[in-house]
Amino acid sequence: MVFNIMTLFPDIINAYVNQSIIKNAIENELIQVNVHNIRDYSANKHKKVDDYPYGGGGGMIMTVQPIYDCYVNIKKNNPSTKLIYFSPKGKVLNNKLSYEYAKYDNITLLCGHYEGIDERIIDMIVDEEISIGDYVLTGGELPALVFLDSVSRKIDGVLSSQDNVQDESFEDGMLEYPQYTRPAEFNGMKVPDVLLSGNHQNIYKWRKEQSLEITKKRRPDLMKF
Amino acid sequence: MVFNIMTLFPDIINAYVNQSIIKNAIENELIQVNVHNIRDYSANKHKKVDDYPYGGGGGMIMTVQPIYDCYVNIKKNNPSTKLIYFSPKGKVLNNKLSYEYAKYDNITLLCGHYEGIDERIIDMIVDEEISIGDYVLTGGELPALVFLDSVSRKIDGVLSSQDNVQDESFEDGMLEYPQYTRPAEFNGMKVPDVLLSGNHQNIYKWRKEQSLEITKKRRPDLMKF
Repeated sequence: MVFNIMTLFPDIINAYVNQSIIKNAIENELIQVNVHNIRDYSANKHKKVDDYPYGGGGGMIMTVQPIYDCYVNIKKNNPSTKLIYFSPKGKVLNNKLSYEYAKYDNITLLCGHYEGIDERIIDMIVDEEISIGDYVLTGGELPALVFLDSVSRKIDGVLSSQDNVQDESFEDGMLEYPQYTRPAEFNGMKVPDVLLSGNHQNIYKWRKEQSLEITKKRRPDLMKF
Repeated sequence: MVFNIMTLFPDIINAYVNQSIIKNAIENELIQVNVHNIRDYSANKHKKVDDYPYGGGGGMIMTVQPIYDCYVNIKKNNPSTKLIYFSPKGKVLNNKLSYEYAKYDNITLLCGHYEGIDERIIDMIVDEEISIGDYVLTGGELPALVFLDSVSRKIDGVLSSQDNVQDESFEDGMLEYPQYTRPAEFNGMKVPDVLLSGNHQNIYKWRKEQSLEITKKRRPDLMKF
């Protein structure tokens, strides 16, 4: 799966992509991440990429031309790509949608910055708007990385086979049970006995009960039954 | 306001903190961001920070000792700090909560990684669990940056006085109106006439109508009336 990322802040994207699971997925050729600096496509001699909003109001708006030309260039080499723009107006990302996007072959992620982008970009070339939550951020870089991470985890082979995907939060509409590791006691705090028992049936039962209890208490809205 | 960030991946945090609005807020001494590498606090001679889960199952769990000792050290110099851990089990962050957290003086953000952290850390030292949305991520680094960005924007002086905060999405339960900037025409696509009219009353009215329409269509759940 190919991710093309259009941004004014490539360093933010590169710092994340060079670490942990995304780095391994790239090295294992399960995903490809191409970062494009929108500023490189500005036709302006000072490489300007923003301007004042028509109709007044504060902040700067990203202009059409650099984004448009950057995307035309990407589309040339990625004819099947879909353009996703991150905005509070978009569909709210969740675990189920991450599975859906993991089926795509080629996605381009457009990160706005400042007060946003000229609406004509959305009308002309954006295929979908996505939001990662009901809060306002300075740019689309964090949403693009959240999308990249949560979607990549749903691609076969990205997580190692020992990873217990079916027990993760949101699978089956449940939150995950508590986890413990060595030592068995720290500052008087002990690991629950059942986890040390070696009785796999009891461990399975305890974990299911814990998941159910915590989901009921904290996020009953997630439960399907 | 002081943010202490506990992470195994300081490079991800530093790349974001050195850019754009957060960088300016730090330079203007409106916020302070201290990044702590949890690995530096490991008492293990190989600086190990994770181990297998008790009771079986895949993935690795972050151990208690390095996190605990890192936090004890932070707390010594920040006695009033509150510890927030990012997890799908937490309260879901939104615009209103960002305003609430902006009132705090000192917050410590704990980023988990891999399959999560030993539950005893949550029982012993975590004050609040926060989620940024209903999806699974590889670590708490992106949630910590989303928190840092969305909360910092609510601190007086972080946004410049021209920024139209009251028109941003989620203020008053509305999504933002479309924005346009120069040129007035691009590839045959024109800016709406009203925005070029100079009639501020009509511009105000058009923007309110657009906000209302887009919120009704996309996120009626946000509307208060």
